[in-house]
Amino acid sequence: MQIIDQRRLPHEYRVHDLNSWQDGEIAIRDMYVRGAPLIGATAAWSLYLAAIHSDGSESTVRAAAAALLESRPTAVNLRWAIERVLGLISESDGNLVDTLRNEATAICEEDIAISRGIGEHGVTLLEEIAQRKQSGPVNILTHCNAGALATINWGTATAPIYVAQERGIDVHVWVDETRPRNQGSQLTAWELGQAGIPHTLIVDNAGGHLMQHGMVDIVITGTDRTTRTGDVANKIGTYLKALAAHDNGIPFYIGLPSTTIDWNIRDGLGEIPIEERDPREVSDIWGSCCGKTTHVRTTADSTPISNYAFDVTPARLVSGLITERGICEASEAGLTGLFPERAGP
Amino acid sequence: MQIIDQRRLPHEYRVHDLNSWQDGEIAIRDMYVRGAPLIGATAAWSLYLAAIHSDGSESTVRAAAAALLESRPTAVNLRWAIERVLGLISESDGNLVDTLRNEATAICEEDIAISRGIGEHGVTLLEEIAQRKQSGPVNILTHCNAGALATINWGTATAPIYVAQERGIDVHVWVDETRPRNQGSQLTAWELGQAGIPHTLIVDNAGGHLMQHGMVDIVITGTDRTTRTGDVANKIGTYLKALAAHDNGIPFYIGLPSTTIDWNIRDGLGEIPIEERDPREVSDIWGSCCGKTTHVRTTADSTPISNYAFDVTPARLVSGLITERGICEASEAGLTGLFPERAGP
Repeated sequence: MQIIDQRRLPHEYRVHDLNSWQDGEIAIRDMYVRGAPLIGATAAWSLYLAAIHSDGSESTVRAAAAALLESRPTAVNLRWAIERVLGLISESDGNLVDTLRNEATAICEEDIAISRGIGEHGVTLLEEIAQRKQSGPVNILTHCNAGALATINWGTATAPIYVAQERGIDVHVWVDETRPRNQGSQLTAWELGQAGIPHTLIVDNAGGHLMQHGMVDIVITGTDRTTRTGDVANKIGTYLKALAAHDNGIPFYIGLPSTTIDWNIRDGLGEIPIEERDPREVSDIWGSCCGKTTHVRTTADSTPISNYAFDVTPARLVSGLITERGICEASEAGLTGLFPERAGP
Repeated sequence: MQIIDQRRLPHEYRVHDLNSWQDGEIAIRDMYVRGAPLIGATAAWSLYLAAIHSDGSESTVRAAAAALLESRPTAVNLRWAIERVLGLISESDGNLVDTLRNEATAICEEDIAISRGIGEHGVTLLEEIAQRKQSGPVNILTHCNAGALATINWGTATAPIYVAQERGIDVHVWVDETRPRNQGSQLTAWELGQAGIPHTLIVDNAGGHLMQHGMVDIVITGTDRTTRTGDVANKIGTYLKALAAHDNGIPFYIGLPSTTIDWNIRDGLGEIPIEERDPREVSDIWGSCCGKTTHVRTTADSTPISNYAFDVTPARLVSGLITERGICEASEAGLTGLFPERAGP
């Protein structure tokens, strides 16, 4: 199994082999791979690796699953993929390796279909704006990377943008840098550049100013976890952009596969644990210098640092959720309208 | 005349000589010095240098003044200091050099008194919070550097914090990193560390999350320019913190010398020009690596970048203005109540 080591983009494009489930666990924990769908797929393939590179017993796979679950505690898609696979191996009386390979393959194929669904529903929002505007591109602001690099192919927040490009809609994307890990400047800007989509990088601080001055038509971000009431946990700083969009009457949408909905919780602020990560993600910045890549420390060594990785945007600030089944209000009624099988108690 | 080259902090403490007014102009434009009061003082001393290192004519000083005015277009304090000095040399029939030296000295002494005034008025807000809280420090969030490094001694936004420390109030400061130039991580964190004031560095994205979870008691920032109606232009991203404070019922105050009030304008969003700076401030990050200081490029070379330096926080989001004369509402009535000499048409 191969992944792109996303930590090295945009300076180096390096493909990394995963030879064991432990490689998969490191790839998830240390963010070689990131993005809810890609994390889920990597976990599923890691369980397959656990089966082929060991005694192949169910207990080995279950031990690997337990370790993988701990690698990114906020990522609900990780839990979803692992529980889905574990559920199958309990029921399966066939070959464990075959079962795991088939299920990992299915997860990837479903992700491709989901991205396409999000893209086709979400593009209607961009088409409406394009029709309304007299001139100029549809200006979309996004935070972090919920793009092709976060999924198997199309992205979630970016899927509508890629579909808009296919349909010839004039778009321009404001890309938040996304401190501390710079997924915007290093991943989203890179993949939009590869795709030939016009974009401009800005610091995370700039979005409010752009919105005040009419330079943003719509905000679309991804999410790591959405409650059944429509509260959205996403990369730290998303909440600030939602506030600015609300203050300026700009639509604020989330692109999400339904697998990232946590149907068991209702209160995003109270119930979603927020991961605190290594302070060195803040102090030490990675980049290229004189043809080499290196880290520089931007702070005094003695400076204390806190590094919360996510925040929660309350549903009241979210204009709507773009899922593979359609767009709905960010509320329990909205979500269970699209997913009636979840409407029960 | 000597300045601290603030671009090199916190990795190097280097004192830089200003030997000509052109040195002063470079120091202001390239941000060796920053912060409204320090910019004003540097400009005043630069005019003195123009007089002593040339033919000493009034026309030379006026030519220097014109060039200095262009060096940081958003900084109203720069204009204030230069116009104050130019006004005097027109009236002066004495020695031009003496006049310029005396006025630059007076500007510095007044700044010290202003910082003390802001500190003593502002500390009352912190005292009230300390009395109300059952336990723990008063948690203050600040953005950018409006500290001692921005002024002649005490700072503006930080003046209440330094006075609180003198009075034994338990404080803790959340320091926004302040992209793109990292004045928070490189200057504010450094000066608070030097002063022994407890603080924690966070990315600019994190403040909303902290406010949602009761970890911030008050926000205090500085300003580059305040309208007579109380709209506040400050470092890009200030508006986002004001929105988050408002959404969470947290007081949001501005510490400002009255010299940064632009009494001629009423509409901050419409009338304050926002400086766009070099995109390399975003792409190239400066820090230390292996005992050396260097820049690394964090983005692909082909990535387009936009770099707005300031934003405007509307008065409706500002709980109050802390000036050297007292604290007032962020409104024309509030400001002219404290500065009745400005109440006229």
